[in-house]
Amino acid sequence: MSDFNFEDHSHRRYNPFTGDWLQVSPHRGKRPWQGQEENTAEEKKVAYDEACYLCPTNTRVNGELNPDYQGSFVFQNDFGALTADIPEGELSEGEFFKAKSERGICKVICFSPRHDLTIPELDVQAITKVVELWKAEYLGLGGKDFINYVQIFENKGSVMGCSNPHPHGQIWAQESVPVEPAKKQQKFSQYFEKYGRSMVVDYVQEELKKNERILFENEYFVGLVPFWAVWPFEAMIAPKTHIASLAEMDEAQMEALADAYRQLTIMYDNVFKVSFPYSAGIHQAMTDGKDHPEWDLHMVFYPPLLRSATVKKFMVGYEMLANPQRDITAESAVKILKSQPKEHYKTGK
Amino acid sequence: MSDFNFEDHSHRRYNPFTGDWLQVSPHRGKRPWQGQEENTAEEKKVAYDEACYLCPTNTRVNGELNPDYQGSFVFQNDFGALTADIPEGELSEGEFFKAKSERGICKVICFSPRHDLTIPELDVQAITKVVELWKAEYLGLGGKDFINYVQIFENKGSVMGCSNPHPHGQIWAQESVPVEPAKKQQKFSQYFEKYGRSMVVDYVQEELKKNERILFENEYFVGLVPFWAVWPFEAMIAPKTHIASLAEMDEAQMEALADAYRQLTIMYDNVFKVSFPYSAGIHQAMTDGKDHPEWDLHMVFYPPLLRSATVKKFMVGYEMLANPQRDITAESAVKILKSQPKEHYKTGK
Ligand SMILES: O=P(O)(O)O[C@H]1O[C@H](CO)[C@@H](O)[C@H](O)[C@H]1O
Ligand SMILES: O=P(O)(O)O[C@H]1O[C@H](CO)[C@@H](O)[C@H](O)[C@H]1O
Repeated sequence: MSDFNFEDHSHRRYNPFTGDWLQVSPHRGKRPWQGQEENTAEEKKVAYDEACYLCPTNTRVNGELNPDYQGSFVFQNDFGALTADIPEGELSEGEFFKAKSERGICKVICFSPRHDLTIPELDVQAITKVVELWKAEYLGLGGKDFINYVQIFENKGSVMGCSNPHPHGQIWAQESVPVEPAKKQQKFSQYFEKYGRSMVVDYVQEELKKNERILFENEYFVGLVPFWAVWPFEAMIAPKTHIASLAEMDEAQMEALADAYRQLTIMYDNVFKVSFPYSAGIHQAMTDGKDHPEWDLHMVFYPPLLRSATVKKFMVGYEMLANPQRDITAESAVKILKSQPKEHYKTGK
Repeated sequence: MSDFNFEDHSHRRYNPFTGDWLQVSPHRGKRPWQGQEENTAEEKKVAYDEACYLCPTNTRVNGELNPDYQGSFVFQNDFGALTADIPEGELSEGEFFKAKSERGICKVICFSPRHDLTIPELDVQAITKVVELWKAEYLGLGGKDFINYVQIFENKGSVMGCSNPHPHGQIWAQESVPVEPAKKQQKFSQYFEKYGRSMVVDYVQEELKKNERILFENEYFVGLVPFWAVWPFEAMIAPKTHIASLAEMDEAQMEALADAYRQLTIMYDNVFKVSFPYSAGIHQAMTDGKDHPEWDLHMVFYPPLLRSATVKKFMVGYEMLANPQRDITAESAVKILKSQPKEHYKTGK
């Protein structure tokens, strides 16, 4: 029998940030696909769309008017999943019935007044304006007494449930720490207690030494595919030195994050020459008023496309019931991503 | 301020089977939907399709011939994510790089020779044949030394990544206990240690007393929407008395499980008068050769549709990065499901 190797044989990988395991089935990329294909026919978009509720000067569903904003623009979500004005309530009945009211605030951030552009098509300066707004919101929302966690994220593409192509992201800020960051909180605390250093930066430094899964780096950040990546082209932007949250970031660091965000999304768009759908967001220190030396802010990207612009990875059946599973290895994804031109396919020669 | 109530106000619910929390935002059902709609135009299906690799007498991709089977039919997956014949290997390097080879066996089960039928359109007798085959496979696969967990599941509908409309399910059996059943293993063990009884049956008995989330019952099983259901119409089929796994089930119990499977899927199809997509599967005792008095077999259903036959719930952005979230409460889903006629919309008058 031939020797075991991670490029050909089924195996599990451990995610030290969450404690979860992942199933990797590298040989599975060979099966034929007869299933659903996504529609990626991109309609020619206009710079300003009068029917879009995110474009400058337009009226939103609740009757409010968007200003004639120039850079980025934030407003409270008219249909937020979390609201601040609910009464408190709690249910605790035996082992099976536990529930608790949850207050929060949901906001929408427009990345640009231009209806037809996306992050990889904006310049670093424009994206830096978005990062600055994130920081202001993290400070503003996180500063409120009843907000203990601020989740900043972007859903991109209709396949990711995004209902409007105008470039935008969201912020959901709330009382409790949600499941995913709570797992990381636990692992990062344990690591910090053991080593007196933060886990994310230590991991980044290890990956820089190995240089097998690094996509790019700039002065403050690296783009990499984590060893335990679940989605086909999952990636992470993480800092080289300790940065617990947006609150600590100076202008140069914000610009570096914007640059990394742009570099990664250009790679993505270039893979299948299509506006690459994903959900992305920032995990960072909770806003409970305490210091969090165990945390480093990092941005994670979960893109669903697998084989082409129209065939995505379905996380269903086995994945929902049993265990996340991927078909190509993290290392193969790195090879594909790194071989892409540095210029966006629409503007590069 | 009005009093808190679970029908109107945002809250979190606790899942005692896994230890996870869920975000419920009942008021959110009111937001308008401008996003992606699924294609549910059902092609008229034929009873036998010569291009289908699951139909009787047809040849599969690997050249093997399907027999002229009458009831259900099982074969080894030609593109299995898990295989038995890989060499062993392990990586353990510091805190960040842990991986291990994973052996397993993947099978496909055809539910019926008829290409054009689905579970809710089969009679109880035919579905009982499927349950009998599940039992045989659970015993056969689970009896192997290197198999410690057997995941039986069904992906239904192209929106759930199902690549062939011929009614079928899958079995992935493997060395390790996957993430989801491993969480339940922990909670069920803790409960059993504390009370000397199994958690699932105790929960079912509590729900029967309350009668707020019960969909139906027969002699051995109930169909219910768990208090902590995540997907819009998520449901569970669970036993009224202790049954650790399929291995323990007698003929009458298998027929009762088939009947429950049929009743629930008829309800589903009737909601939007469409073949209702879902991922479903059985969680049950691991096959490590030990007794598992803490376990009760139960079948879980995760259907994505939310508002109509074409608008599904997207578990993206916030849900992937932070916390599972639902818009309608479990109790509203029960009302919708229970108000459906008992006959399938295609055959009922
Ligand atoms: O095995 P199939 O039907 O080809 O594939 C489907 O089910 C599998 C198990 O849930 C998933 O891993 C795949 O992403 C999905 O497309
Ligand atoms: O808020 P939106 O864009 O209307 O909705 C989208 O993002 C939300 C947050 O990730 C999800 O809960 C919704 O399922 C999705 O459709």
